Amino acid sequence: MSEQKNIMEYETVALDDRGPAVVILDQTKLPGSVELIRLTSAQEIWDAIYYLKVRGAPAIGVAAAFGIYVLAEGIRTEDYDAFLEEFRKQKRYLDSARPTAVNLSWALERMEQIVLQNPGKSVKEIRTLLRQEAVAIRDEDIRVCRAIGEYGLTLVKPGDGILTHCNAGQLATVKYGTATAPIYLGQERGYHFRVFADETRPLLQGARLTAYELQASGVDVTLICDNMSATVMKNGWVNAVFVGCDRVAANGDAANKIGTSAVAAVAAHYGVPVYVCAPTSTIDRNTESGDGIRIEQRPAEEVTEMWYRERMAPEGVKVFNPAFDVTDHSLIAGIVTEYGIARAPYTESLQRIFEQKGSHPLT
Amino acid sequence: MSEQKNIMEYETVALDDRGPAVVILDQTKLPGSVELIRLTSAQEIWDAIYYLKVRGAPAIGVAAAFGIYVLAEGIRTEDYDAFLEEFRKQKRYLDSARPTAVNLSWALERMEQIVLQNPGKSVKEIRTLLRQEAVAIRDEDIRVCRAIGEYGLTLVKPGDGILTHCNAGQLATVKYGTATAPIYLGQERGYHFRVFADETRPLLQGARLTAYELQASGVDVTLICDNMSATVMKNGWVNAVFVGCDRVAANGDAANKIGTSAVAAVAAHYGVPVYVCAPTSTIDRNTESGDGIRIEQRPAEEVTEMWYRERMAPEGVKVFNPAFDVTDHSLIAGIVTEYGIARAPYTESLQRIFEQKGSHPLT
Repeated sequence: MSEQKNIMEYETVALDDRGPAVVILDQTKLPGSVELIRLTSAQEIWDAIYYLKVRGAPAIGVAAAFGIYVLAEGIRTEDYDAFLEEFRKQKRYLDSARPTAVNLSWALERMEQIVLQNPGKSVKEIRTLLRQEAVAIRDEDIRVCRAIGEYGLTLVKPGDGILTHCNAGQLATVKYGTATAPIYLGQERGYHFRVFADETRPLLQGARLTAYELQASGVDVTLICDNMSATVMKNGWVNAVFVGCDRVAANGDAANKIGTSAVAAVAAHYGVPVYVCAPTSTIDRNTESGDGIRIEQRPAEEVTEMWYRERMAPEGVKVFNPAFDVTDHSLIAGIVTEYGIARAPYTESLQRIFEQKGSHPLT
Repeated sequence: MSEQKNIMEYETVALDDRGPAVVILDQTKLPGSVELIRLTSAQEIWDAIYYLKVRGAPAIGVAAAFGIYVLAEGIRTEDYDAFLEEFRKQKRYLDSARPTAVNLSWALERMEQIVLQNPGKSVKEIRTLLRQEAVAIRDEDIRVCRAIGEYGLTLVKPGDGILTHCNAGQLATVKYGTATAPIYLGQERGYHFRVFADETRPLLQGARLTAYELQASGVDVTLICDNMSATVMKNGWVNAVFVGCDRVAANGDAANKIGTSAVAAVAAHYGVPVYVCAPTSTIDRNTESGDGIRIEQRPAEEVTEMWYRERMAPEGVKVFNPAFDVTDHSLIAGIVTEYGIARAPYTESLQRIFEQKGSHPLT
């Protein structure tokens, strides 16, 4: 199925109970073409995540939750143990699609807990509970992003210049985005931000997705190449950098799209604060520091060819193509979560965020 | 005329006395295709410079010198004053092709001096002197690059990792390059450098040209996206950054390809020294600081489309596309010239370089 629609009318990831199926906006086709695709098999869901048809840590989490539910509907047994075994097999498979974003394993883990906590229930009842949990993960994502937007908005003032890298926008989540949530809320309230979107090589999520969704929402956005951030900062056009993240370690080190740590080093040079917008689902307290975060390496062709079509570099040239980098906590002015803003020292402040989460769950 | 050749066998810019014509390697076709093109009209020469068929500050200077000589051969008068008037008209036109690299106006100025200093000679004799001067500018470029290579080589040791941005290679000069001169000389002497080439958006001179010419010369080169410099530096893989430049101000501020100042800020963060390789022809002592350097703005389509064919960003999005940026002298560990290495404070050290030039001309 493929339909032409206006992107802003749709959720990035949705569940269609007919089938059932995961319905995603194919982000590899943007901005040229807005296509919804239905995913029903394990292979289709894995491919959609691996090939970045759905991307962005929170959106990957929601897609995985819907995905494992859809697969659970297809497990042809009413025996609990057989169901659990097959569920785990499918879970491991989906979990192998991408290593860096913690949300993938976090969402799959939450889904498995539903199965483990209900051994007395029938498989049919468990399937219903799985659907509820996946929908809850999706709904939480929307609330969490909105809360991040509210906290983030306290860090800037009307008319400010904001630089963002990659796409931590609506397209990376279900709605609002993380790094873009303050921008969208500010837009609703007449803040008139001036946003600079790094194009974000090699896959150009900034050019294709962030510039697109902000422009579609009427935000004043200017597209720049990644290497122009120093110039716009030197010109005094940037008051704050907002970025998303794929995994935050316990000490505040943040893995995010390749190039984030370069932006952070440049911002430090020009005295511009860098804020990492991180749902608590992205904070991995089991990983002590950034050194413990596995960085996905991707194919050379992403750099040497444009969309695997036109070659732009000599044949056979060596390429280093890490998908992410780790920004040292010392370069981060604040980590904006749905429970408030953590400031250095992060080991303590992130701990407090989780304590707050325990007492006032947003979710 | 279009011929398929191996790039390393050719000079980037040459004079063909049949015609006469300027013969250049069309750099917009690399690395897919190696084509030599002949330029004979003012429009062809201007276009070749404006559309980057020949690019790199030193190569632009040589192309302009050959170019104005070729045009002088076509001025149909034997009257000195009429010749001078037409010569100046052609010179102003070529000079308008690109504003940032000082070599363009520097080479044209040198050529005009030949005309001005020989009012007693026949136009025919002046044409011969113009040819000699253009050839001298070309020959000097080769000697100057080699000398920069020798000085630059004293700043690194065998096995070092070197990062470079854009193409200040053989293709940006006549031979050796500026930033690549130490790499090529080191290669001849078994230094086994490990080079990282920034791809250099938007026009990918690093991917298309630097990676290509280094690979063709057997240098160990790894292509990275511009935003990966922080990661390779954090990994400890880079001992020095060598870049070229388009114009150095009297205080050491250096205009070079967009992104250079970002690399310099990142390098400062990781304690990696940044060396700017600058023939004295690139040093503009009439410009006090980087604030006085005019930065060329280029079309949005360079960022939003790949080679003006495939669109990668939404229609109508605002784009900021400066071709160059200025790296503050405080971020530069040394300016490598053909007369030695200038160190901070640059106003004094660059002055000494020019005094040395006066007493021991390389040229």
